[in-house]
Amino acid sequence: MGSLPIDLFNPLDNENFVDESSRVLEFIADYYKNVGNYPVRSQVKPGYLQKLSPNSAPYFPESLETILGDIQTDILPGLTHWQSPNFFAYFQANASTAAFLGEMLCTGLNVVGFNWISSPAATELEAIVVDWMGKMLKLPQSFLFSGGGGGVLHGSTCEAIVCTLAAARDKALNELGADKITKLVVYGSDQTHFTLQKASKLVGINPNNFRTIKTSTLTSFALAPDDVRATMEADLASGLVPLFLCATIGTTALGAVDSLEGLGQVAKDYEVWFHVDAAYGGSACICPEFRQYLNGIELVDSISMNPHKWFLTNMDCCCLWVKNPSTLVDSLSTSPEILRNKATESKKVVDYKDWQIALSRRFRALKLWLVIRRYGVANLMEHIRSDIKLAKKFEGFVVEDERFEVVVPRKFALVCFRLKPRRSEEDGSKLNWKLLEEVNSSGKAFMTHAVVDGTFLIRCAIGGTFTEERHIDGLWKLIQEKAADLVIETCYPSII
Amino acid sequence: MGSLPIDLFNPLDNENFVDESSRVLEFIADYYKNVGNYPVRSQVKPGYLQKLSPNSAPYFPESLETILGDIQTDILPGLTHWQSPNFFAYFQANASTAAFLGEMLCTGLNVVGFNWISSPAATELEAIVVDWMGKMLKLPQSFLFSGGGGGVLHGSTCEAIVCTLAAARDKALNELGADKITKLVVYGSDQTHFTLQKASKLVGINPNNFRTIKTSTLTSFALAPDDVRATMEADLASGLVPLFLCATIGTTALGAVDSLEGLGQVAKDYEVWFHVDAAYGGSACICPEFRQYLNGIELVDSISMNPHKWFLTNMDCCCLWVKNPSTLVDSLSTSPEILRNKATESKKVVDYKDWQIALSRRFRALKLWLVIRRYGVANLMEHIRSDIKLAKKFEGFVVEDERFEVVVPRKFALVCFRLKPRRSEEDGSKLNWKLLEEVNSSGKAFMTHAVVDGTFLIRCAIGGTFTEERHIDGLWKLIQEKAADLVIETCYPSII
Repeated sequence: MGSLPIDLFNPLDNENFVDESSRVLEFIADYYKNVGNYPVRSQVKPGYLQKLSPNSAPYFPESLETILGDIQTDILPGLTHWQSPNFFAYFQANASTAAFLGEMLCTGLNVVGFNWISSPAATELEAIVVDWMGKMLKLPQSFLFSGGGGGVLHGSTCEAIVCTLAAARDKALNELGADKITKLVVYGSDQTHFTLQKASKLVGINPNNFRTIKTSTLTSFALAPDDVRATMEADLASGLVPLFLCATIGTTALGAVDSLEGLGQVAKDYEVWFHVDAAYGGSACICPEFRQYLNGIELVDSISMNPHKWFLTNMDCCCLWVKNPSTLVDSLSTSPEILRNKATESKKVVDYKDWQIALSRRFRALKLWLVIRRYGVANLMEHIRSDIKLAKKFEGFVVEDERFEVVVPRKFALVCFRLKPRRSEEDGSKLNWKLLEEVNSSGKAFMTHAVVDGTFLIRCAIGGTFTEERHIDGLWKLIQEKAADLVIETCYPSII
Repeated sequence: MGSLPIDLFNPLDNENFVDESSRVLEFIADYYKNVGNYPVRSQVKPGYLQKLSPNSAPYFPESLETILGDIQTDILPGLTHWQSPNFFAYFQANASTAAFLGEMLCTGLNVVGFNWISSPAATELEAIVVDWMGKMLKLPQSFLFSGGGGGVLHGSTCEAIVCTLAAARDKALNELGADKITKLVVYGSDQTHFTLQKASKLVGINPNNFRTIKTSTLTSFALAPDDVRATMEADLASGLVPLFLCATIGTTALGAVDSLEGLGQVAKDYEVWFHVDAAYGGSACICPEFRQYLNGIELVDSISMNPHKWFLTNMDCCCLWVKNPSTLVDSLSTSPEILRNKATESKKVVDYKDWQIALSRRFRALKLWLVIRRYGVANLMEHIRSDIKLAKKFEGFVVEDERFEVVVPRKFALVCFRLKPRRSEEDGSKLNWKLLEEVNSSGKAFMTHAVVDGTFLIRCAIGGTFTEERHIDGLWKLIQEKAADLVIETCYPSII
């Protein structure tokens, strides 16, 4: 009354919001038009951006024009372009219009759905969309909410594994006593993603109690059930307690697939929690011709897969399903007074804060829901199949050229190949390392490598949103050129 | 050659991308125009969305029009509107145009910067922007990259605490031996966010070794250093090992502030890792008049704060600074062959995968960088100060009305108040619970509660992006109306 009104700084003026956002949209569209022209792997030197940036935050605001200018000149050259059609490194991180729309809505609405009441639609849509995904993968009813199980969206496989490991650990310690944490053992193969080892350490498993079981060409680098059994027997004999076994559908290095049927029986016999990491291969399993890789899934306690890899869903999005949500909730739930509410007390709702590490969470379900509805299962299968076709074509190139060989059988859209060693294996590794570096430093394509059983190989992961047949043709041409240069260099080293 | 070309489904057609994104922009702008008209706390019933949704994913694509229509009719009513100007619950989740632009760019570029080479700019911009933030907070040089420390962006405080706890745990176990994990003890107060307890359990601390030290009005609900000292002494006497102490700048229930100076000395004496959770209060500390709350910060090992609360940065964004990054990296690093690269081997770069739980990570730095540059420190301070002014105004309303009282002294923009109990404390709790429920179920505003020392109080957290003076006036009018109804009901219960 009588006092001056309180002046508010308005960072969300409606007209300005639409205007500036539209300019950024155009910027991104322009980036997509040109993304194939940038060197795929960034060619900057460590510390390049520090030299271009002021040492402290600006006191006064800067214009969007200035900032977008800096992104164009300073940031874009420092990116390794995951959306380049010539990106074949690691695994792809698919982008799509529908996922982008979902992220815009998630960010714009900016609700924080940690429990049901804090935004019921965020929780309910997530439950619906993970059930849809579960059905697309033909998971047993027991993994769906309608069948007493359920799913949740995490940001990454590591988070999903940390949570399932914690659930398994606490279930075991409730029986054994908290002091027995030092006795628990976790099992994976030498092809299991290193995330399992990190997650085990994170949840307090003694690093000495992590078992990396060796695989070989004999099983196409799949984990052999008998080897797991033998390792568990040995641990039991030394007074340890087998806790957790992780199988993989589409390993990181090679795209190998562990057999759920064989391993499931071992998990059952030794009463360990059995998790399946289908981060990469899971997406393909929506196609009937790949569903076989999930045979035995009924023997599993939990399964995770990443739509943010090969399912047209921009970062980040990882689906985790569990058969017994109560095990997860028992380990992760908290009931502080400050969050007490009638909906939770009615026990008729899911509070997703109890299914994950953090309290706060984004409305990620919108993104996956948009992808599924906007494209439909038909196009999503088509998306997977066309990438596989491209991979087959690339594989054909390798097979036809007698200087090269496919190192392990291809299962999905990852082709593992190398120049055949001419003298020794050691020489072969050096030669392929050099070939890879020549390709990558050309800026025209980016692939990565793996070393399996002492063999250095080049990984060509096909599946970028913008990758077309002509890019596969171009990649092969590039590889052939670089290989020819290497051959000349190796034959006539003194001339070079 | 001769074979049919491989048809590709194109989910990122440039024209379509701009067209559909523009329509979603308009949708969000329209939402912002109307967000004040929706019931703030959603009024749907558990399971409402399941009834409106198909049981499985559509086989064929659906139009954006159909999907946006469903969002309007089915999703929006199921949201609790965190961006409503009448949202005063929990703590606010600020949205802004600049952060939205940053998220669009992050999602659009869709790079995955787990290590330096996977997108150098993502790593370098993050290092720059956390150093900027650190300087804005006047953190000691030792927390900045330039001073041998460094910072990282996480998604949430819980992740930040899990990582620092793991670092502290592994540092201790390296000296004590892995079996001593069962002896480690973590300390917080009864006002510390429950995330600390959850994080402790996650990293394998025996739940019996978590200490919740009681606070009281005597210290304005701050953790008393002498009480911490006594608790640690008792633990040492029973053969346990004090590991980790967490102080809070702006507690969740009350906005209370622990003294870093007093606690820092205890942490030093007992050689425990000392973390500061400034999730809420940290943002205010960029203003000189609030910086005092960080006095003693030089005694701390790590500090985290959430720009996604009160710093105009849409979800999710949490800054974590550590004095000794090597402790963090020692605990969290992994060096699989598949990620081997020259930049990492040169040791001249930061690989942020070793500073966090997950491998994959989004380019969150863009968002915070956009916020800081587009608004400037001047406007960011103005933003904090105007919210404090609104909170002071609301506090004035409470003080002026003799039926009400402010329960604990206000430090930031959170006002904790209640209707004075007329008969007993128990009666007072019931009365205030009823008042809160009347306000919330009206749909006109949403606040939450806390119970401290047996006292039920109502929390009014001011700071939403759209909240203006008139909303504070309206909120107080609403509270007065509902309180008057309650008084009548209490005086003449038989008539109602």
